[in-house]
Parts: sequence; structure tokens; C-alpha cells
Amino acid sequence: MIGVGLVGYGYWGPNLLRNFQEAGAHVLAVCDKNTDHIGKLTLRHPTIHTTTDYSDLLKNPKIDAIAIATPVSTHYDLAMQALKAGKHVLVEKPLAYTSEHASQLIEEAGKRGLVLMVDHTFIYSGAVKKIEQTIADHSLGRLYYYDSIRVNLGLFQHDVNVLWDLAVHDLAIMDYVLKARPDAVSVTGSAHVSGQIANIAYMTCFFPDNLIAHFHVNWLSPVKIRHTLIGGDRKMILYDDLEPDEKVKIYDRGVNLSGSQGEEQVYQSLVNYRSGDMWAPKIDRTEPLLTEMKHFIDCVKNKKQPLTDGLAGWRVVKVLESANQSLVSGGRPVELTFDDAGMDNRNKETTECLKK
Amino acid sequence: MIGVGLVGYGYWGPNLLRNFQEAGAHVLAVCDKNTDHIGKLTLRHPTIHTTTDYSDLLKNPKIDAIAIATPVSTHYDLAMQALKAGKHVLVEKPLAYTSEHASQLIEEAGKRGLVLMVDHTFIYSGAVKKIEQTIADHSLGRLYYYDSIRVNLGLFQHDVNVLWDLAVHDLAIMDYVLKARPDAVSVTGSAHVSGQIANIAYMTCFFPDNLIAHFHVNWLSPVKIRHTLIGGDRKMILYDDLEPDEKVKIYDRGVNLSGSQGEEQVYQSLVNYRSGDMWAPKIDRTEPLLTEMKHFIDCVKNKKQPLTDGLAGWRVVKVLESANQSLVSGGRPVELTFDDAGMDNRNKETTECLKK
Amino acid sequence: MIGVGLVGYGYWGPNLLRNFQEAGAHVLAVCDKNTDHIGKLTLRHPTIHTTTDYSDLLKNPKIDAIAIATPVSTHYDLAMQALKAGKHVLVEKPLAYTSEHASQLIEEAGKRGLVLMVDHTFIYSGAVKKIEQTIADHSLGRLYYYDSIRVNLGLFQHDVNVLWDLAVHDLAIMDYVLKARPDAVSVTGSAHVSGQIANIAYMTCFFPDNLIAHFHVNWLSPVKIRHTLIGGDRKMILYDDLEPDEKVKIYDRGVNLSGSQGEEQVYQSLVNYRSGDMWAPKIDRTEPLLTEMKHFIDCVKNKKQPLTDGLAGWRVVKVLESANQSLVSGGRPVELTFDDAGMDNRNKETTECLKK
Amino acid sequence: MIGVGLVGYGYWGPNLLRNFQEAGAHVLAVCDKNTDHIGKLTLRHPTIHTTTDYSDLLKNPKIDAIAIATPVSTHYDLAMQALKAGKHVLVEKPLAYTSEHASQLIEEAGKRGLVLMVDHTFIYSGAVKKIEQTIADHSLGRLYYYDSIRVNLGLFQHDVNVLWDLAVHDLAIMDYVLKARPDAVSVTGSAHVSGQIANIAYMTCFFPDNLIAHFHVNWLSPVKIRHTLIGGDRKMILYDDLEPDEKVKIYDRGVNLSGSQGEEQVYQSLVNYRSGDMWAPKIDRTEPLLTEMKHFIDCVKNKKQPLTDGLAGWRVVKVLESANQSLVSGGRPVELTFDDAGMDNRNKETTECLKK
Repeated sequence: MIGVGLVGYGYWGPNLLRNFQEAGAHVLAVCDKNTDHIGKLTLRHPTIHTTTDYSDLLKNPKIDAIAIATPVSTHYDLAMQALKAGKHVLVEKPLAYTSEHASQLIEEAGKRGLVLMVDHTFIYSGAVKKIEQTIADHSLGRLYYYDSIRVNLGLFQHDVNVLWDLAVHDLAIMDYVLKARPDAVSVTGSAHVSGQIANIAYMTCFFPDNLIAHFHVNWLSPVKIRHTLIGGDRKMILYDDLEPDEKVKIYDRGVNLSGSQGEEQVYQSLVNYRSGDMWAPKIDRTEPLLTEMKHFIDCVKNKKQPLTDGLAGWRVVKVLESANQSLVSGGRPVELTFDDAGMDNRNKETTECLKK
Repeated sequence: MIGVGLVGYGYWGPNLLRNFQEAGAHVLAVCDKNTDHIGKLTLRHPTIHTTTDYSDLLKNPKIDAIAIATPVSTHYDLAMQALKAGKHVLVEKPLAYTSEHASQLIEEAGKRGLVLMVDHTFIYSGAVKKIEQTIADHSLGRLYYYDSIRVNLGLFQHDVNVLWDLAVHDLAIMDYVLKARPDAVSVTGSAHVSGQIANIAYMTCFFPDNLIAHFHVNWLSPVKIRHTLIGGDRKMILYDDLEPDEKVKIYDRGVNLSGSQGEEQVYQSLVNYRSGDMWAPKIDRTEPLLTEMKHFIDCVKNKKQPLTDGLAGWRVVKVLESANQSLVSGGRPVELTFDDAGMDNRNKETTECLKK
Repeated sequence: MIGVGLVGYGYWGPNLLRNFQEAGAHVLAVCDKNTDHIGKLTLRHPTIHTTTDYSDLLKNPKIDAIAIATPVSTHYDLAMQALKAGKHVLVEKPLAYTSEHASQLIEEAGKRGLVLMVDHTFIYSGAVKKIEQTIADHSLGRLYYYDSIRVNLGLFQHDVNVLWDLAVHDLAIMDYVLKARPDAVSVTGSAHVSGQIANIAYMTCFFPDNLIAHFHVNWLSPVKIRHTLIGGDRKMILYDDLEPDEKVKIYDRGVNLSGSQGEEQVYQSLVNYRSGDMWAPKIDRTEPLLTEMKHFIDCVKNKKQPLTDGLAGWRVVKVLESANQSLVSGGRPVELTFDDAGMDNRNKETTECLKK
Repeated sequence: MIGVGLVGYGYWGPNLLRNFQEAGAHVLAVCDKNTDHIGKLTLRHPTIHTTTDYSDLLKNPKIDAIAIATPVSTHYDLAMQALKAGKHVLVEKPLAYTSEHASQLIEEAGKRGLVLMVDHTFIYSGAVKKIEQTIADHSLGRLYYYDSIRVNLGLFQHDVNVLWDLAVHDLAIMDYVLKARPDAVSVTGSAHVSGQIANIAYMTCFFPDNLIAHFHVNWLSPVKIRHTLIGGDRKMILYDDLEPDEKVKIYDRGVNLSGSQGEEQVYQSLVNYRSGDMWAPKIDRTEPLLTEMKHFIDCVKNKKQPLTDGLAGWRVVKVLESANQSLVSGGRPVELTFDDAGMDNRNKETTECLKK
């Protein structure tokens, strides 16, 4: 049984704690500066040690891994300290405030052979797993677009805009299911409440071969929507995370083009719509966070590289950084380059160290 | 009873004809070059004169008004000929291919005192009328955003991209309900089928005071969606045109800000979400096109300026023109200026001429 | 081209007329005593002969078939007169007010070799056809239940209760897809408006082998619902006629029982729920009434027995008759016997006569 | 802080425990014969005493109240023992297997001045509270019908049929919101799995003044539905418990009748449908079980009669008893009489004793 220390028992921390317990980890201590949070914890779990001093966790030799569920701006410091104290680390999304910070964390974990995992929760859901498989086996054909809506009323974050709070989920999912990286982003949005932190945003990611992705996020929507469309020339997916049963629907719909004719004819008789069956595959209903906690424990115990490793976290932060640049310019496209080779090397150090 | 000539009996023409008849106009003749179309017409309406020669309509002294339901690229020529022949004109949306063409049509109609109306059908629906009233009486408070989704499978247009085919509806609705004009647009999109005509597009319109509008249109969606959110600080609207009964829902939801505190505190305790009742007002269910045809007949008979006059058509075409510019540049914002004074003058000529 | 006379141009008659025309029949004359109805007809179809005297239709030698779209209480007289005048007959549902009347119509048509068809429209829809096929190929396994809801606001009928107005649709569908006949019915309901004609009713049909069917109909529901569940031990169907696209969903869900164990254990570990994929097959979207009109024309021209022949109409009326008996007794079950042999013989006369 | 003992830690017990803790009670001990259940409890709550011997709870002087979450057939014995040991009692629904048992429990609690409460959880939900208020203030006008659907896949109960498992919820809600008692019930249903315990049932309750109620319950539905319609002559309610936000919708729809005309005219021009606005009031989202636990604690501490007292439990069991009789006879109506005076007296003893 691995020993876990948790920092942050606000909105998300209690979920981490409950699922660590269900997954068979031993949560030994929780650090939070908010006495209300500590009070709730004590009522529910009288036997867990509490502290307001993070170094208590770092110094505790029974703690193998530290889970970080605090505001984004603190992720880098807390994670770096944990790695330097020799602890494996799980960080709530997004991994860090800057891609530079993310790459430093990857490097540190790599040198020390420690697990660095980012809590991209949706990757561990049955629905996203099914979508990833469907795309991987080429069922959709050539990919046309990825379109996502994630809107609801609140909560405003203190230190990041709505992209870093909501679109981060969709970027993580897209990164996982498309296995592709955008060339450029164009983002528009508006800040209604403070005039400074955007609460509504629209982001387009451009990919090679005309593949386009779009993310619509909003903290001020009267209704909650979680809706993703993925279109290919053979099949198309509708993923609605709020559907209790049929979260993933696969449509045998698309468009047929005869290729040989001249271009001027293209829009006349050649575009044939194909409308066939719809199929909603059975989805594994295990709570994603439980699957994720089990995976983290398995990586720590068996020295494995996690599915949502530091590199996955770094890629998402890279896109978010460029998104912020485009946002302030009213949609001007910002090009993106991923130094994958360099990053991969640093990341591989972990894998190699872990194997030792 | 006014006499009407119709040009174009393809997809939309039969709807115009049926509603002109229900509204009490006399449809005397239909012009279409497609013999299949003419064949269908003859089967259903054996007494209506048919022709493939547009000048038959122009020369017919019993025809007071001409309705144009042909591809966009032909609107200007057909409408200009009709005006010069002294006929009142109803043109399917969008009014013309360029704002310059639109302004010439307005000028010509103005000089001759003829009615020039654009078929922005949704403006005549009970749902849009209710939304317009709700905004006009300040129920929503300060406006934050206008967000629209209009996607489905097909039909590809031959001569215009998806913005000109689908977003035109939403731009017309927005123009009518917001009574405001955008400063700039940023558009992204992709052309999957021919490589030339965008079949998916995302358009942002920037307005003064941080009001933002966004339009998502797609010809390759596996599901049909017609979904508009309008957010204000007091209330918010969800308009779903596919709902059979409750097309317009008004939510007493929003966000409260205490204004006096310093900015650094804004995101702490000050953002209070307000979640109250929802109200779906009764909506007039008259077929919008019937209301529109009655309005057109009334304008012709009683020398009135129509609700969706040439100027409304020109404003929508202005936005679409700039949208195309931004689209090819990957989202670069394009500024918009409306020479309203000049346009208004030309438009007023009609009103004055009509009054004579 | 067969010649058709239509009696009744109120709510349903215009639909019959339009589809007869689309299907290629020649509608020569319409009879209606209501001058408003005649006025509307003349406006739309100036070339069709109108009359208030039914005998004009009976005497017209160009009329091969008569379509009856009048109140239920008049069906028998009008249909019998038409048959005696040698006309083929299509009768709106339900076929007649009593099963005795229905059997007399069957006999008369049989003797004369005339087509007698009842307008069970849903049988000609793509959705019901797909359900019928799915049950016929035993995909559902052993059938457990058929459960239907058909409720909305209005219209009150003048001469029949809500069962004869709404449940008649579902009884016709059930008769077609189950190919089985109930042993008994139990019906409850209430008459709120006049105290005499039930406007809400619940009907249970008992079949052999524990198969049970239930029909919920209501003229005073604030929302419109068209919802049918059909359960088997292998698969289950949800049919929602208001869904624009996915009207029929087939669920790979059910219950597994191990048969060998003793009864006392049945409810312990033996009941295993099976939850698999859902599949929404592509449905033919042709307007059902058009398919039906084409079938009627085909039967008249080629001397065929229609799918919804007099016998189908008679079976539905038999169930409705018994339903009324049970209704007035507060749900007391009423047994049902079908003299199929006798009825089949009479019906076969038609087939034989038609073949001559 | 009151001390609570819980018997039964299977499906529902953990929810009771969690909410007792949140509500501020001290759960001292849990009794369950199933070692798996005890194992789970110990993992989550290492400090709570566990036992397989119910008398441990009865003898513990720190335990003021006992909560019973065991199969229905055990409710009477366990509750009676608890009352005789001087403990206040909360019993999961339904209160008992027979109305005679229910009345004995009421009498025992009455004599001893102990709180006897039945866990009719839905009564404590914001949605049901809002419906109760809406009916109580006569907003619906004269009541026409109460129609409920509660279907899903599983779970089969070992000792009761689907009425006692599912319809019990709706009977409790109906009892609370209508404040009326049925004169008779008619029930149909079928037992597909064992041939003995009905897994699908349809129950009609007849009330004075043509008010009718209907309950549709099914353990073998491929989809989950929780849908209640309540119709009056002024307004109508749709209550959908699966809606995340708008659980209760109030429709300004109904039917207007002019009363003065003769009966033969009733169905002609007099039935006017009224279709107005819809309104979804804000609903308190507190977890119903938390509200209920607080209410139970309040009743115990302050000697109050609970909202869902023994009498409420007895009324529901009375209807279920008669329902079973009608079910086996294929729908034959069974009359119901409530000895309210007698029962009220016994129940009042509690109130009086509690006040001492």
C-alpha cells in the first residue's frame, strides 16, 4: 500500500481522497491553509493527519507520493518541491502556468526517476476511451473537424481565465484522441466581470490537412452543455457527457465525392450525403477518477510512465499559452511549434530511470 | 389583389408561392429554366403561367411585384431589372453578393419609390419577435454575449460558402434583436470537400462595451442543431428553434458583482451566481413566411417601408463580406465601418417616394 | 390513372387529397357539407369538382374509388353505399363504430370483389415497418410487454372517446407488429369535461404467455408524447415518433435467468441484467400517407388485398368495443374472442373475387 | 448530538449513514449480517462499531434512535423490537408488509411517545415540496389526473413486487401532494421472470369527483424514466426527476368550457384549449435525504410528529395491499376504506406523549 499526501482539500481534493482510498492507497496526511476545509476533513476522516505546513508532507518518509489540488499558480512550486524531496507527483490540471515550468518539472522528474502525472481526468473515462479506439481504428475515415462546447454558470477561477479552467479538459481529450498537434490557434473572447479575465472564449486550432478544431467555453451560460462533435468522411461522433446512458453516438453519416470530375462540377451532383445507422456502444461506467488513481498507484509501484504524463500536460499548456496571446489580439492567429524531440528526450529519462 | 411573378421554383420557391396564395396575392406567372421544376409546378397549379424567359415577367403589366428565389449570384441582376421595369421586389437572403450591389439596389428602389424587401424569414417568426421585445424592454440588463449554433448535414451551395448560406440567418436575427453593429469580425473555418468553399466556419463579431457574438455553422454535422444563447447580467435567453413548443426560454440567472471593492478581491467572494426561475413565454405559431408575405403585400399596397428592407439586407452583406476576408487569413480580425448616414439617406428616398 | 372521389375535407381530407395527387391518382370530386371547407378547397384547387351531395360521387362513372374522411359514426353508411355503387373504398380509422358493421363491410366488399382498406396510416411508416421486421426476425427474443403512451392537448372528438381517437393508432400498430390477439382487456379512465366521453384512459391487453400490452391516452396533457416501449428477453425497442431522426432505438438489454436452480433462489443471484450497445437503424422517411396512397392505388389497379384490409380494421374495432365495456365497470377485465375463421372466409372472398 | 444505530448497510444504508453524519447525528453502531457490507463499512469508517447482533443496538443506552434499512419483510419485527426497547425509529419504505403491522407500530410508538418515521425520501425534495405548495394554493384549479411513470432496468427485489419497490415512492408523493385518499384501485401487471412476482404493473386509483391517478412501474425497461403529469382545469404540472435543472414545469394550459349550453353542444365549439406560458420555478437542490435526516433529528430532539409519520406509511401500505388483490384478478377494481378516525387517534397518542 503506497502512502499518499494530499495538498488542497477544497473543491477537488475530497474527490481525490475518496478515490485514493477506494483504489487502495493510504492517505496519510492532508495539507490545507483553510481551516474550514480542515474542519470538514476531520469530521469525515478523524484518523487522517492534518497540517497547514507543506513541509510536513515533504518530510514524512511514509509518504511516497503527493497529490496537488491547489490553484494553478501554485502548481509549479509545490510540484518541484515534492520532486526534489523524492516524492512521486500527481498534479491537478493544468500542469503549470507556463510551458517552461512544465518542462522543468518533466526534467526534474526525469532526472530522479519519479512519476510525474497530470490529472487529465477525462482520459480515464469509458467514453473518451471508446472515442480514442474508434478514431485509432480509422472508423471515422479522414478527420474533418473536432468541435467542443463546455459551458455552464460559474465557477469563476481566481487566477486563470475560462480557457485554462474549462478548455483544458477538451484540449487534453483532443490531444489523446487525435494524436496530432495544432500548427496555429486563433482565439476570441470577452471579459465581462472584471474586464481582465476572459469568462467566455472561442478557440480554433488549425491542424495539417484542413483538420480544424474549435472550443467554446463560457462561465456565464444559463444552461450546462458538454457537447463534442467529431467529423470524418466515413463516420461522425457525438459525445455528450451529460447523457446518463448514451454518452457516445457514432453516426454512419458523411459525404461522398466523386474525385474524377472537374472542379467546376464539384458542387453540382457530386456531393452526396450518406445517412445510415447510428450506434451507441456500451460504455464502461467506472468512475474515471477511480481508474486514474489505480493507474497512478500502478505507475508508482511498478515504475511505469503514466498515460497522462508530464509531456501530455506540457502539450496542453503550450496550446493554452498561445491561446492567451491570440485572445488579446482579437483573434490574430498565433503559430505553434512543439519541440517534441527535446521534450521527448527529457521525458524518456523518467522512463529509463523508472526502469532501473 | 396584387399580382406577383416568381422567379425560381427550386427549393424555396414553392414555399413562397404557397404562402403568397394563402396571404391573398395572385401569383400570375413563374419563371424557371429547369423543366423539372416547371413540370412539378404545372402538376400542382395547372392555372399558373410558366416561362423560361424572365422578360415575360418584366413585361407583364398585371405583375406588380417580383419575388426572386434563385442562387445568390443572380440576385443583383434579376432585382435590378425588376426595379427598372417598375416592379416591387422581394429577394431571397442574402440580398446580394456584395454590399456595393446591395447599395445600388437600395438606391434604385429609392429613386423609383418601389418596395425592396429581403426575405429574412426568421424576423417574422413568433420566437424572434418575442426575443426582440424581451431585449427591447431591457429585461436582460446589460448584454454580454450572443451565441448561435446552426449546423446540419448539407446542403452544399454552389456559389456561396456556409456563412452565406447559414450564418446569414443568424446575422439577420442578431441585427434585428440587438439593434447594434459590430466593430470587427474574426472568422476561422475549413473547406473539406472542394478545398475552396468553406463548409464549416466560426465567426466572432466584436461590439462596443465588450458585447461579443459568435456564430458556428457547419454543413457536415451528423445532427441538426439550432441553438442560440443570449446572455445579460439580469437574465439570459435560450432559443432552440427545433423545440416544438418551448422555443424561447428566459432564465433568471446571472452574476452579481459588488462594485465597491478593490479589483484584487473581485474573484473571491464577490462573484455571486443568481439562479432563479425559468419562464417559457407563449409564442405565436403562425408560419413566419405567411406573416412575411402579408407584410410584403401590405407594404406594396400601402406604400410602407418593410421591416426587412434593403438596408437590413445591406448590413448583413457588409458583415459577410468582412467575414470572408478574415476567413482567408486564419482569423485575423477585420474592422467594419457602416456608412449608415449615406445608406440611410438612400433608403429614406424610398420611404419618401412611397409616401407620395 | 384511377379516379378518386373524396368525402370530407376537414382536418384529414386535405392530406389524403395532396397525397393522392402525389401518388398519381386523379381526384375528380370532393363532397363536404361545410361551405368553409369547400371554399378552402376551391382556392387551392380550382379545377376539382365540389358537391354537398354524396350521390354525385356514387353516380360518377369516372370515379373508381371513394376515400372517406368523415366522423366515425358515418363511416358505415358512407362505405356501404360506396361498395353497393361498385366503388373501391378507403375508410379513415377506425373502420366502423361496431365490429358488426365492420364485418358487414368486409362481407359486402368480399361479395363484390372490391378493395376495402382502412387508413391505419402508421403501418405505412418506415419506423413501424422497421419494428415489424425486427420482431419478425426474433431479434427481441421472447416478448414481455408492449407499452405505449399517446397524449397531447386536444382535439376532443364529438362522437368517440379518447380510446377510439388515439389508442386506435396504437392498436393498429400492435396488431401489425405482434401478429397476436389479446385474450382480455382491462380499461380505466375518466371523463372530466362532459362527464360522458372519457378524455383519459388506460387500457391493458392480456395475451397468452404473460405478454402484456398497455395503452395510455389523454386529450388533456400539457405536453405531447408519442412513446412506445417493446420489451423482450433478448432486446428491447424504444419508438419515439416525435424524434426527428432516431425514431427507433434497439437496446441490447435484458435479463438473464439460469433455469436450473430452485425457485427460492430465483431472486438472488440469478437475475442478471445485460446492458449492451444501442442501435438506431436508418429509417425510410417517406411520408407514410404517400406510401399508403400508392399501395391503395396498386391494390385497386392490380386487384390485391391491402395490408390494412377490412379484417385489420375489424380486429381493432373488436378490441375497442370490449375496451368500452371494461371502462364503464372501472377496470373489470373483459374477455375477447375473435371469430377469425368466419371473418377470414369473408375476407378471402374479396381476394378471390379480386383475382377474377 | 443524538446517538443513532443503523441496521442494514447494503444499498441504502450507506446513504443514511452519510447523511446522518452531515446532519450532525452520531452514528455509533451498525448491524449487518453480511460480512462484505461490514468490510466496506470498516474501510470507510474505522471508528464505527459493527455487529451482527441486533440486540447490541437495542441494549446500547447511547443509542437514542434506530434506522432500519433492511428488506421489507423484516421491517415490522425490527421496528417493534426497537420501539419496545424505547428507541425512536426510522424505517425505510414501505413501512411494513401489511397495514395491520403498520397500525401496530403506530400504536406502540403512540403508547410510548416515541418518534416513528417512514423514509418517504421524495417528500423532502425541493421538487415535491414545490408541487405540494402549487396544489395547496389552488393554482391548478380543479384536479383532473395524476399520472406517473417510474421504470428502469432492475433491481429485482427478493420479497416484494415492483409496486412495493417503485410505486411506493409515487404513492407517498401523491398522498402528500393531493391530500386525498382513493376509493378504489384497479391493477394489471405481469410476472415474466419467476412467474410469481410481478415485474411490470399498471395501477389506477379512483378518487371522488372523477379525479384519477395512474402508476406505471417496470423493472425491465431499457431506459430509465421518472415522469409525472398532474392535470387541472387551470394549470398542469410536468415533474421529471431526471432533469438536472428544470424538474418541475408548470404549464398555463387547460380547457375552457362554457357551462350554460346544452349537453349536445358540448363537443362542438365549447371546448377551447388554452395554451399559455410555461414556468419552471427555482427548486431547492439540497439532497432530500439530508433534509429528512435533519427533520428526524429535530423530531427526536424536540418531540415533534414527523411529516412522514407512521400514518403516512400506513396509508401507502393500505393502497399497496389492495393493489395486490386487484393485480391477481386481472384488474378487477378493489374498494378501499381508510379507518382514519381510529388511526388518527392512535397516531395522536404519539403527539401527545411526545409533548409531555
